[in-house]
Amino acid sequence: MAKLLRINLSESKATFEEVPEAYRKFGGRGLTGSIVANEVPPTCDPLGVENKLVWAPGILAGTTVPCSGRLSVGTKSPMTKGIKEANSGGGMAQKLARLGIKAVIFEGKSKEPTSVKINKDGVSFSSAASLAGLGSYAILEKLKKENGDKACLAFVGPAGDMKLTAASIVFTTPDFHLRFAARGGVGAVMGSKNLKCVVVEDGGVNHVQVKDKDKMKEGVAKLTKHVAADHFAQGLRRMGTPQIVMITQLAGALPTKNYSMGQFEKAESICGEHMEEVLKARPNCETTHRCMDGCIISCSNIYSDEKGKFIVSGIEYETLALVGANCMIGDLDMVARINRACNDVGVDTMDIGGALAVAMEAGLLKWGDAEAALKLVEGIAQGDENSIIIGSGVKIAGEKLGVKRIPHVKGQCMSGYDPRILKGTGVTFATSPQGADHTAGIVLPGPHDPTYVPVAPTGQAPKSQFMQSWMAAADTLGLCMMIAMPIMEAGPGLHLNVVSSVSALTGEELDDKYICNLGTEVLAIERKFNKAAGMTSEDDRLPKFFSEEPNAPGAPVFDVSPAEIDSVHKV
Amino acid sequence: MAKLLRINLSESKATFEEVPEAYRKFGGRGLTGSIVANEVPPTCDPLGVENKLVWAPGILAGTTVPCSGRLSVGTKSPMTKGIKEANSGGGMAQKLARLGIKAVIFEGKSKEPTSVKINKDGVSFSSAASLAGLGSYAILEKLKKENGDKACLAFVGPAGDMKLTAASIVFTTPDFHLRFAARGGVGAVMGSKNLKCVVVEDGGVNHVQVKDKDKMKEGVAKLTKHVAADHFAQGLRRMGTPQIVMITQLAGALPTKNYSMGQFEKAESICGEHMEEVLKARPNCETTHRCMDGCIISCSNIYSDEKGKFIVSGIEYETLALVGANCMIGDLDMVARINRACNDVGVDTMDIGGALAVAMEAGLLKWGDAEAALKLVEGIAQGDENSIIIGSGVKIAGEKLGVKRIPHVKGQCMSGYDPRILKGTGVTFATSPQGADHTAGIVLPGPHDPTYVPVAPTGQAPKSQFMQSWMAAADTLGLCMMIAMPIMEAGPGLHLNVVSSVSALTGEELDDKYICNLGTEVLAIERKFNKAAGMTSEDDRLPKFFSEEPNAPGAPVFDVSPAEIDSVHKV
Repeated sequence: MAKLLRINLSESKATFEEVPEAYRKFGGRGLTGSIVANEVPPTCDPLGVENKLVWAPGILAGTTVPCSGRLSVGTKSPMTKGIKEANSGGGMAQKLARLGIKAVIFEGKSKEPTSVKINKDGVSFSSAASLAGLGSYAILEKLKKENGDKACLAFVGPAGDMKLTAASIVFTTPDFHLRFAARGGVGAVMGSKNLKCVVVEDGGVNHVQVKDKDKMKEGVAKLTKHVAADHFAQGLRRMGTPQIVMITQLAGALPTKNYSMGQFEKAESICGEHMEEVLKARPNCETTHRCMDGCIISCSNIYSDEKGKFIVSGIEYETLALVGANCMIGDLDMVARINRACNDVGVDTMDIGGALAVAMEAGLLKWGDAEAALKLVEGIAQGDENSIIIGSGVKIAGEKLGVKRIPHVKGQCMSGYDPRILKGTGVTFATSPQGADHTAGIVLPGPHDPTYVPVAPTGQAPKSQFMQSWMAAADTLGLCMMIAMPIMEAGPGLHLNVVSSVSALTGEELDDKYICNLGTEVLAIERKFNKAAGMTSEDDRLPKFFSEEPNAPGAPVFDVSPAEIDSVHKV
Repeated sequence: MAKLLRINLSESKATFEEVPEAYRKFGGRGLTGSIVANEVPPTCDPLGVENKLVWAPGILAGTTVPCSGRLSVGTKSPMTKGIKEANSGGGMAQKLARLGIKAVIFEGKSKEPTSVKINKDGVSFSSAASLAGLGSYAILEKLKKENGDKACLAFVGPAGDMKLTAASIVFTTPDFHLRFAARGGVGAVMGSKNLKCVVVEDGGVNHVQVKDKDKMKEGVAKLTKHVAADHFAQGLRRMGTPQIVMITQLAGALPTKNYSMGQFEKAESICGEHMEEVLKARPNCETTHRCMDGCIISCSNIYSDEKGKFIVSGIEYETLALVGANCMIGDLDMVARINRACNDVGVDTMDIGGALAVAMEAGLLKWGDAEAALKLVEGIAQGDENSIIIGSGVKIAGEKLGVKRIPHVKGQCMSGYDPRILKGTGVTFATSPQGADHTAGIVLPGPHDPTYVPVAPTGQAPKSQFMQSWMAAADTLGLCMMIAMPIMEAGPGLHLNVVSSVSALTGEELDDKYICNLGTEVLAIERKFNKAAGMTSEDDRLPKFFSEEPNAPGAPVFDVSPAEIDSVHKV
């Protein structure tokens, strides 16, 4: 049976432990949340030695269930000051699962920058001094050379070393592109522990044992067949998440000019349709790329310049929305370069996009000045004063620069969906224990409720609550959001195949409500931690300007009542 | 082959004519529109002798295709001054189709109130003097006694005799409840011709010949199976269209207080869920009732008082929205009584609800004063001055009473969907050749486009254009909106069964785009007539207040640009 791997960095000591009974039903977000809730004092300093960093593959990791290889990274966040799980693609979750590791708990603090290696023989520690001062792409090359092409690599860039609030953790894909546990400053926690990098090899073992292989095969076949034919998934395969640009643009919900507008006049030059054309015309580009084994959607891409020189992989909608439209940068190549610069120093593109826009509002640079924005991001590694402000994310940047309109909840920058138009998503931004985050339960119109109206002032809390539970379950199962959404849309007929796959894996009988009950349980654990950390209903509010300023003449403001917002927690 | 039946009322003469080649592909709205466009001078007086009144069953009438018995009533409207088709349930379309009548064209004008009888032996004329002064329910009893229980009856009430702009035409269901071709004053045109009533018997004949019965059987089976399982259709079976009250209420799109608010504090006392409870608790009520043979949805109801005394059948969402919320009348029994009074005098409940609300805004009666509203409607038959104003519909009432906020387009009262929230529907209200009407192409979120956002300022015209084509085709086929919408939502797999059913009926090969092409052709005929009647793009606009006043603090206004609105016609 899978084990917990506890790595004490203060003592360079690794221990395999039996998984306590209470944790067994969890994986991913539910497991990292449970461990953080049980082992981390809610009021501790997130960058102090009491905090822990927990990685867990989802329940389904290592199985044939499609798109089930997401990794959950849990900790107390230096950004939200509450519980945090940042979720990443790449190969780490599957590697850990195959090694029979249900979670890795990093605790304590190394004296020097340390590299940890995990393989089938155990855990070893070494100095990471040789990586000092390098950017992510240089670290990648060095680690690849040292560890060969079978390992999965994880590390922090300079921003993590500097413990910047927007620092992310890098994880590699099987073909050594970079993926990120981007949100909430999890990279700062890793940096605070002097944990520079983690190398994981599975050596071809696979400890994942499926109890009923035929049952799983059947569920997987049905899921695969449906998702392959799904309209939205097909769009993702062609254009990736950038297909969303023109959708939010048309809806007037594309954050523009620090969330003061809902449509960007240059949206068409940063949209998925345009990007697809650009990438098809250039050498060494890919429009259909997958970040993990077993992915049937392939929403990622490889973006190179006109001569075929690699820039970044992959450009995501959120980056286009926050670094592009929200900063009024309409040059796709420049968004790609800023994206690369964020990756290289190791920061979240969303909080950086938000921070650049408040800096533009403050007059530190001009609206749409992509060159100046790029320089600011590149300056983070050098410790330039203004760059450090940007690298601290939207809330700290906004406060330091005296900006009143700061689009954050619980300190975390909002994702690229205007909550004045998409009010159910606004309720999720407000109430998610994770801070403002689209992956915590975006609420969109869809087949599951043909009559849902996103702008309605009421009826949003139940939709948000349902989606928050659904996504908390997806993060616990290890399912990518890009498959969790089509499964949700398809309704009960399809989601029962997820339930039967879990049942096939564990041998347990599960009922039809398994998914939502699982998610609801996970949310309760997270909320309990946040409450103990001092959060109140006042932390479950959107910034006031969303209720006062429409994002266009005649457009609505966010007017879901506090009572309805708070009702999310009463389900 | 089916014939046109031309009834010249000036000469009491009836002629059966071959159907001209150009008309053969049409039925229902497409056919009434074509005949009006070809035979009625666009600039004529709608209540003058040059106007004609055309009734046509849909293409599929008399077949086993479910819910295919809607009748189209076409004319030049005294309300919109443009082309009009008002659509009715009941038994008339199937009776005409079985008699081999593709359309009835009423032209000229009788000297005295006249009754026309159509059966398998031909057409006969007689005096309708004995019906003078009677309300609809008394006329019904009298005609039933005279004609037995196999006929379908059609007539106008006192409002039609008085040529009031909101007068409707009554058609009976197989069990002798009343249905209405309600909109646009078609009853005034019938009244202007001194055509008091029409009695149609089919004597058991059925001239509808299906070319390929097996093919039709297959299409019908698939349609029936899908619609029976459809979520929205199941709601209609339980609660009828009143299920929509809580949907628009939650969306903030329920017209309240003359369209100045989007939510009604007493919505729960006039909603479908409440009505279902009320009807189940009372004697002589039905929650599941069908208005035509071959209906598989049964969205109608029979509403009686606490002692079981019949009040009205059936209460519809539009009546609850316009007479209820929009007049702030929250007493379901009183809405039912006002509905009955409208039926009895023979006027459209929507334009009357709209007119009562502008009268409330003008101070003629108090907001929510149901007794005063009922008296005003009852006073129409007596010719009371203020009652006549109400019976003339919202536009004339608003203008006569000096109200600036009049919710109409082309003179016709808006349906119960606030266009500030549901902007695609707003574009349909603005641009439909029929004036503001939900049956002309309501645009809702749904499975066919999971990412559609109703409040978005752009992207609405293509949605409206598609739905207008779809509904124009449904009205031409004779399909009820309540089945046309689920078929549309289900996407291509299902609608091809409609196409194959038409093909099975006529023997023609039809392609996949048959439905939308049919609808687009019908719309073009209607627009051409309106243009010749003098309408311009200025007639394709919503009243200004929808672009200036939100219906709640923080709610949006209607901000789809005139250019986008006009683009509907450029498809």
